[in-house]
Amino acid sequence: MAVSEEQDFVKQITKMSVDFDKWYTDVVRKAELADYAPIAGTMVLRPLGTATWDAIRRAFDDLIAETGHENWIFPLLIPEDVFMKEAEHVQGFAPEVAWVTRGGKEDLAVPLVVRPTSETIIGTIVRKYIQSHRDLPLLTNQWANVVRWEMRTRLFLRSREFYWQEGHTFHATAAEAESEVLQILDDYREIAEDWLAVPVIPGRKTEVEKFAGAEFTTSIEGMMRDGLALQMGTSHYFGQNFSSAYDIGFTNRENRRELCYTTSWGISWRLIGGLVMAHGDDSGLVMPPRIAPVQAAIVPIFRDEAGREAVSRFLAPITAALKGRVRHRVDWRDNRPGDKYAHWEVRGVPFRVEAGPRDVEAGQVVVVDRLSREKRQVPAASLADWLVDELNAYHATLFERARKFHTEHTAHPQTKQEFRDFFENGNGFAWAAFCDRTECELELKDQLGGVTARNKPFRVEGGFPDRCVWCEQPATTVAVFARAY
Amino acid sequence: MAVSEEQDFVKQITKMSVDFDKWYTDVVRKAELADYAPIAGTMVLRPLGTATWDAIRRAFDDLIAETGHENWIFPLLIPEDVFMKEAEHVQGFAPEVAWVTRGGKEDLAVPLVVRPTSETIIGTIVRKYIQSHRDLPLLTNQWANVVRWEMRTRLFLRSREFYWQEGHTFHATAAEAESEVLQILDDYREIAEDWLAVPVIPGRKTEVEKFAGAEFTTSIEGMMRDGLALQMGTSHYFGQNFSSAYDIGFTNRENRRELCYTTSWGISWRLIGGLVMAHGDDSGLVMPPRIAPVQAAIVPIFRDEAGREAVSRFLAPITAALKGRVRHRVDWRDNRPGDKYAHWEVRGVPFRVEAGPRDVEAGQVVVVDRLSREKRQVPAASLADWLVDELNAYHATLFERARKFHTEHTAHPQTKQEFRDFFENGNGFAWAAFCDRTECELELKDQLGGVTARNKPFRVEGGFPDRCVWCEQPATTVAVFARAY
Repeated sequence: MAVSEEQDFVKQITKMSVDFDKWYTDVVRKAELADYAPIAGTMVLRPLGTATWDAIRRAFDDLIAETGHENWIFPLLIPEDVFMKEAEHVQGFAPEVAWVTRGGKEDLAVPLVVRPTSETIIGTIVRKYIQSHRDLPLLTNQWANVVRWEMRTRLFLRSREFYWQEGHTFHATAAEAESEVLQILDDYREIAEDWLAVPVIPGRKTEVEKFAGAEFTTSIEGMMRDGLALQMGTSHYFGQNFSSAYDIGFTNRENRRELCYTTSWGISWRLIGGLVMAHGDDSGLVMPPRIAPVQAAIVPIFRDEAGREAVSRFLAPITAALKGRVRHRVDWRDNRPGDKYAHWEVRGVPFRVEAGPRDVEAGQVVVVDRLSREKRQVPAASLADWLVDELNAYHATLFERARKFHTEHTAHPQTKQEFRDFFENGNGFAWAAFCDRTECELELKDQLGGVTARNKPFRVEGGFPDRCVWCEQPATTVAVFARAY
Repeated sequence: MAVSEEQDFVKQITKMSVDFDKWYTDVVRKAELADYAPIAGTMVLRPLGTATWDAIRRAFDDLIAETGHENWIFPLLIPEDVFMKEAEHVQGFAPEVAWVTRGGKEDLAVPLVVRPTSETIIGTIVRKYIQSHRDLPLLTNQWANVVRWEMRTRLFLRSREFYWQEGHTFHATAAEAESEVLQILDDYREIAEDWLAVPVIPGRKTEVEKFAGAEFTTSIEGMMRDGLALQMGTSHYFGQNFSSAYDIGFTNRENRRELCYTTSWGISWRLIGGLVMAHGDDSGLVMPPRIAPVQAAIVPIFRDEAGREAVSRFLAPITAALKGRVRHRVDWRDNRPGDKYAHWEVRGVPFRVEAGPRDVEAGQVVVVDRLSREKRQVPAASLADWLVDELNAYHATLFERARKFHTEHTAHPQTKQEFRDFFENGNGFAWAAFCDRTECELELKDQLGGVTARNKPFRVEGGFPDRCVWCEQPATTVAVFARAY
């Protein structure tokens, strides 16, 4: 954050209530998370965005390492013939891939796809590392950039290049692969809820929304402050679709060759867009404390060089105590304190710590949190302990606030009319009995301006009618409906 | 490392003395650091390689964070017109870039370069974040993949896609930018020597070897066990070359507009190739302990289930004490102990810890290090402390061994004949007086089968003749000559 305020072309943040989309873009740019890049549809991640993505990466890496997953680095470029083997997958992705057709001064004999996702290349590579059942499960993950030539783009949510992790796993049995899919979806729920403080609904996608080439897809869905859904992570079960297309086999315990059962799963930097839209307000970003790159911004207040030295001496033992426990920054810039407060507020730093001459004298600091904005005096000697506790409390408060919003914007329409009314008057999540037929889903999507079945939640409480809320044919499931990003 | 031994197509490691190149490739593949990928000239980084690269990343990130650098994520694709602005740079890179010419089903109006390096796109992006001298210095870094359509490739050292960090910094004065170049080169020296245990020579490149578009280039050069040089990091000073091509200016303290002074610098995963070639032996990899993903491999020895339980109970407090202090792995696989020893040896793990029934009884373990292969008995209760100390000693031993090899293969030829004899009879580093003329350098390179001036070392001890070792014109510098990767 070496760049000063002066270059901020976003002078004011548009109010959320006036124009949610513009509010979102203003916050992302004014908080210096990210910005547009020169190629239409691509973006640049600035230091705050990069540090946030790294924090998500560390949290998720720790989670999957516990269950035996290992990171690999697979190639960016995929030869056309390798890409083209699984028919549904090709159909799903071919319209949006970028092609490398020249290398140096020569036209390539085989054009290369810039990976939009890596099932095809990873399958092709790891098949030679899998011989027998003893090589399974093979649990791979990579942190990578992918390219999808999208036409409608939006910062973090849909860009022509984005960063994500993609896990690809290979198993000896269908049951084990299915259990992997669910285990990872639960890890995603943990990232969303316990790290980003965004409550989510885990469930299974309908046929319309599943991944190209999957047997089934699961997802977690979060609610943004405009009532729209954001798909925050997906985990796919492929059965033997990819292993038969790519001939990924193993010798089983009976010494017979079988095809592997495979999965893939991903979360991307769209999670950063999600935390902006789930927690932000008219003053800017509100960072969930566990992934916040700066958890406490310390603003020293002084009038002259002597004052500066006094507060500097005062802060030395405080920052020493914070080291390794609370991620903090001391803001020594030559700006007025008010400008510094605004600087850290728009970036959503959970706690601001003020230390002025009177505080030095009293051996205390003044702490203001981003949510309540209350001023609290805290003895300097106990600041580190206090912040560690309060950061946890702050996470709980933030999660609870998001949960409350989510609940208040959730309906359980019993009839088609109630269902229509809900989506004609606004946005939110509607849980409803559903026939799970593609025609029905496409019809309601068309008639209700983009409403889709986000997923079929794994956990359903209460009773639902036995007829589909839309077509009144027999219901086979309960689905959550919403308009979505 | 879930993949079993069975899939190892490299059955034996070729002896280093028989064929160094083949030995290198065998070690990289048999240690499961990396492997060839389906597209000619690209590679896949396996878990051990990926974890090693991550360890280098963490070490370097910590170093540059201390001096105020921040990570960004810049775009992969660069529009042709953006790429083409700095003439020398274009000339240097155009022959080896990969071009994206189609997106989805449409031919692109402006073809896109897959970044071979990012000076052009980063300059184009950050210029809008720099208005006044208060925005400077702007110290950016990114961890990224780049593509160079090379014709001769080699695992880690030269591949069509590789991972690196590239730093790009923007300064108000030439002096500050030059000092940045040297500061970073010293950070690179620290990574090479204090983390990878490879002694290096920091110095300035000749005109022939400098980066396309740079005013000057500096490098660190390490010696591999075949006497060849490996350039292990470069740091470039651009003056105002890029800032004038890309109009990157700022308002100075006198309120006048000036162009920035810029730098860039990079280290790549070729460092992993470097540590293999600087430390490895006929048994495989020798990992420098500070970046080794596994510093101690614990091999439990037992005959039956009761024995397994006893050793498991014995190891519980030991691994608890190691946690957070020594990166370790307990190898519970169903293989024979001898196979496990071989498994960890080829991967270069610094310490192997054996714990069998007699050790359990005696409350001790047997520790064998990868370098000396001596067996030492260590009380179980003090293993963690012992390993922490011994890992540092091991680093020192490894560095000293490499330094000794480096010194023994270094000559100081006084005459053209001595210089010729040195390179006609083998490889190593020759420090010699040099006229620093491009014609002379190209001539000796041609006549001595690829010998080049690696750099002009910053620190030169002892006296040198005042005539160039090759052309006998007046010497203006001392250079280190070698054949290089």
